[in-house]
Amino acid sequence: MTDWNSALYMKFENERTRAARDLLGQIPDFEPNSIFDLGCGPGNGTELLAATFPRATIVGLDFSDNMLAVACARVTTAQFNKQDIETWRPADKVDLIFANAALQFVPNHHDLMVRLVSFLHEGGWQMPNNIQELSHALMRMVAADGPWARRLIPIAKTRPMIGALDEYYQLLAAVCSKIDIWQTTYIHPLDGPDSVVEWFEGSGLRPFLEPLSPCEREVFMSRYRAELAASYPRQPNGKVLLRYPRLFFVVQK
Amino acid sequence: MTDWNSALYMKFENERTRAARDLLGQIPDFEPNSIFDLGCGPGNGTELLAATFPRATIVGLDFSDNMLAVACARVTTAQFNKQDIETWRPADKVDLIFANAALQFVPNHHDLMVRLVSFLHEGGWQMPNNIQELSHALMRMVAADGPWARRLIPIAKTRPMIGALDEYYQLLAAVCSKIDIWQTTYIHPLDGPDSVVEWFEGSGLRPFLEPLSPCEREVFMSRYRAELAASYPRQPNGKVLLRYPRLFFVVQK
Repeated sequence: MTDWNSALYMKFENERTRAARDLLGQIPDFEPNSIFDLGCGPGNGTELLAATFPRATIVGLDFSDNMLAVACARVTTAQFNKQDIETWRPADKVDLIFANAALQFVPNHHDLMVRLVSFLHEGGWQMPNNIQELSHALMRMVAADGPWARRLIPIAKTRPMIGALDEYYQLLAAVCSKIDIWQTTYIHPLDGPDSVVEWFEGSGLRPFLEPLSPCEREVFMSRYRAELAASYPRQPNGKVLLRYPRLFFVVQK
Repeated sequence: MTDWNSALYMKFENERTRAARDLLGQIPDFEPNSIFDLGCGPGNGTELLAATFPRATIVGLDFSDNMLAVACARVTTAQFNKQDIETWRPADKVDLIFANAALQFVPNHHDLMVRLVSFLHEGGWQMPNNIQELSHALMRMVAADGPWARRLIPIAKTRPMIGALDEYYQLLAAVCSKIDIWQTTYIHPLDGPDSVVEWFEGSGLRPFLEPLSPCEREVFMSRYRAELAASYPRQPNGKVLLRYPRLFFVVQK
């Protein structure tokens, strides 16, 4: 797959970082010495961690060279390593494992969560849970209805699925002394339906666009853009409201 | 109506105050001189406000004598007044209006929100939005099916309804320079289904129990208890998970 576009991703950085701030706000008051930021992206969450815990050793992990280059330049007090979070194992126990919108990319993130708990003292992670939102339903609809359907339907089927809350609670309750789970649906006022398209062009649309030729991509995008415009009506002040649900976990071993 | 039972309400105070903490956490960093806490209840939110803004003049308003007595004893640096928030009008502009789980009790809370904006510089309020949750669907079901149905159905119909998010956004966008709306669904692990009953006995069940005789109340409660036990299954660790959605607003005039 082509590498992530950090500039496009960062276009909505303030909105994306809100979740990292909210997650960090629920981490109990303690002084971690070692912190890992899993799937650190352009370092927006790492920067928050560095500001909150200035004395900790912080390591950001990501698989994207683009993202790591941006993160490195941004948070000079942290280390950054290229690493697939699915296969990551720390050499020593970690005081705090943090992951803002990353674990959902790992196909079996249920097992991953349990494994992460075995490495940590304290953990906080957040996963977008927008598979049932219009933005994503329309993405799948366009993928399933076009000359690309045979290529894209299997991809639609492997998109990260967030499970039932009971299931997460049960698997974490078996290994954690404290668990806090909540879901927040942010209402982001964006400049128009095309902003919704841009938001997901930098993230959720990537696997759908990847197998397409440049010409197909244009057709796909113009159909997706038209569907979104019809489904995200402008408010009287011109904005469109993007509902964005995110599922949060704060755990203590 | 009989007065609120502050002791019962406070049984789940930590869970109820979580929302007040989260709301306060999103209020921009500023130094309000005057704060009103609308529907302050037992002063749990007022206490947070007093700790966060030690130099501000804080006034808690509530309609319940029980709640006011508890709040007064608890937050000695604040003033408390008996006041119906629907008819409240401050003498001067207020720097910060705060309301944790209060505005939803006002029949036309849409108009109230717009009126509040005319009084404030900054505002933050939160309203439970659990009308579609099992806990409340079962409450209405028991109310509609029993010797009390004729008395309770009209009450079920006047329970506070939370409107569409677009609607709130539009009416606030017309009068505010900044609006932030989000909904958080907390997952509260409680000791068992009876804890869910106790939670709402201190709040949402009150209008349903009020018109019943003591004997009817017992029957109503035992039926509600049985319904909840069937619908909130115990987790392997014995807990039940109460989903509790709350809708948040932070606005600037």
